[in-house]
Amino acid sequence: MSTKKWSARAALVAGAAAIALALSACTAGGSTNESTSAEGTFAGSESETYYMVTFLSGYPFWKETYRGFQDAARQLGVTAQYAGATEYDVNAAVSSLEQIIAKKPDGIAVTAMDADAYVAPIDKAVDAGIPTVTFDSDAPDSKRAAFLGTGNYAAGAEVASQLGERLDGKGKVGVVTLLGQTNINDRVRGFEETLESEYPGIEIVDVVDAGSDETSAGSAASNLIKANPGLDAIFATTVTAEIGSLTAIDESGSAGELKLVTFDSDEVTLKNIQAGTVEFSVAQGPYHMGYWSMMMLYAVKHKTVSPVDDWSTYGIDPLPPMVDTGAFLIDAENVDAYLNTGK
Amino acid sequence: MSTKKWSARAALVAGAAAIALALSACTAGGSTNESTSAEGTFAGSESETYYMVTFLSGYPFWKETYRGFQDAARQLGVTAQYAGATEYDVNAAVSSLEQIIAKKPDGIAVTAMDADAYVAPIDKAVDAGIPTVTFDSDAPDSKRAAFLGTGNYAAGAEVASQLGERLDGKGKVGVVTLLGQTNINDRVRGFEETLESEYPGIEIVDVVDAGSDETSAGSAASNLIKANPGLDAIFATTVTAEIGSLTAIDESGSAGELKLVTFDSDEVTLKNIQAGTVEFSVAQGPYHMGYWSMMMLYAVKHKTVSPVDDWSTYGIDPLPPMVDTGAFLIDAENVDAYLNTGK
Repeated sequence: MSTKKWSARAALVAGAAAIALALSACTAGGSTNESTSAEGTFAGSESETYYMVTFLSGYPFWKETYRGFQDAARQLGVTAQYAGATEYDVNAAVSSLEQIIAKKPDGIAVTAMDADAYVAPIDKAVDAGIPTVTFDSDAPDSKRAAFLGTGNYAAGAEVASQLGERLDGKGKVGVVTLLGQTNINDRVRGFEETLESEYPGIEIVDVVDAGSDETSAGSAASNLIKANPGLDAIFATTVTAEIGSLTAIDESGSAGELKLVTFDSDEVTLKNIQAGTVEFSVAQGPYHMGYWSMMMLYAVKHKTVSPVDDWSTYGIDPLPPMVDTGAFLIDAENVDAYLNTGK
Repeated sequence: MSTKKWSARAALVAGAAAIALALSACTAGGSTNESTSAEGTFAGSESETYYMVTFLSGYPFWKETYRGFQDAARQLGVTAQYAGATEYDVNAAVSSLEQIIAKKPDGIAVTAMDADAYVAPIDKAVDAGIPTVTFDSDAPDSKRAAFLGTGNYAAGAEVASQLGERLDGKGKVGVVTLLGQTNINDRVRGFEETLESEYPGIEIVDVVDAGSDETSAGSAASNLIKANPGLDAIFATTVTAEIGSLTAIDESGSAGELKLVTFDSDEVTLKNIQAGTVEFSVAQGPYHMGYWSMMMLYAVKHKTVSPVDDWSTYGIDPLPPMVDTGAFLIDAENVDAYLNTGK
């Protein structure tokens, strides 16, 4: 490539192009990647160790991502390990990642607590030849081979589809959200655009900022309700927005008339669904994040996807750059069982 | 779920939730999915047959998708087959898919020539217990377990990043596109929003409709150039738009000053890049589409991703719903080798 300073993404696509070339050249030359037998390709060795690294270790969500990671590792015959800083502190989190890199494992799936702070350590891992993917929270400017997480736009669209059905395609809706964060903004955009295109009879009266705590969220929701008599539903995009909105709905006396719908599957939300104060929530697919992270790390480590001998020549590992691990519905009909799993 | 008529997407997410429950319940109960040994999980049988089904069979793009599909099948020890109607005709294409379904294969990866026309046959396959994914072109309202294809928004963003670098972050840009088609509109949106947020010094002067042929595209591009003296670049989102724009640039005498950038990797585009009349193009990742389609179909067929005994109970197979197979750069530095592969 040229001597210009390319962005990480540019490097990625340039690398992918180079790999495509190499692949094609190899086919043209008549060689195939038969060096591994059919039986052997996906039978790894227990001495191979793959790490899942998170921040805030112990957080229930990671338990489920790690369960998927472990399942795939067991099926592949390799060893899975979990690591991560216990606190919610970016320095501690990065430092725990660096400790894992120093062990030179066979692959790392890491969730980036901060997109920028993780670029340097992830690039260090990749430059050291360690296959690396991100999951749940991405560091898009790093050299990670792939990101596996929730497509927030699609998840927001899912909220819209569910709500559109339950309102029979008509009514007035407001959004209480945390403005300024990309993933949450994507959720709102997916929600808005899907209602506009698929449920034109539903009007979005306002999108208000929940602010950083439940009190500010409550005020925002309260003002939203007062300004819009006859409001049919509120989409609260975070648990903070949900708690504030719930208080506002209670105080306004519109409980039972005004539907509250929300995102994610923390215990507060599940209990609200159980109590009937939240109509439904759309949750993420942590098991998929872990399972396919492991499968893709293994594919990179074992070069299963191409006969290229030295991928580092091309600057990047050949994986699909993004896996949307989905969004699923929790409502009155399945919340009990969900809550009972203790996740 | 309720007795309401849910959308396919709603059914999907509800199904995923049910599976998540089943998974969690199983863990809570202490059981694990050790029924398949580490060595055996990804060692299939040659008598298992997985089909890739396309329209317009013989089209070079499918050769590359099928190469990925075959590679994964060989590694898994199963049999891959290719099928598809030769003509560009939706009835013939659907009919060829139905013939494959009648064979009751172990899995089908299909590209939907028409999103609506493919819903019924795909749902028939899924209802018959055949693991089914879509690739390249989706049928989002069908029961397919996953879609593997290009994230057009991200691909458009990639065009913007590349162009932004090459214009040193400043200048005037026009878009010549085919209006009205979702995947192409997404490309344009990714392009626009990325320029706005990352290269605010670049102005998008207009987005014009190329119409359905090279003549109308040429007129549209010509008017764009005349109305905007000093235009620095045109993004042509299709090969038709590219050919029309090239004619208009020639006639305006602005060749060499006005950069033309485009999408995809057909031979016309590659030769234009080689000739220097097209600055670069952003191409798709067909190999990845085929490779990971096969991997995911196998995972569904062999129930590797969960210990659920009968997924059909839950209405859907548990896969990440969307795999973005990426976008990569072709420019003067790699076009020769790319063209030589004969793809």
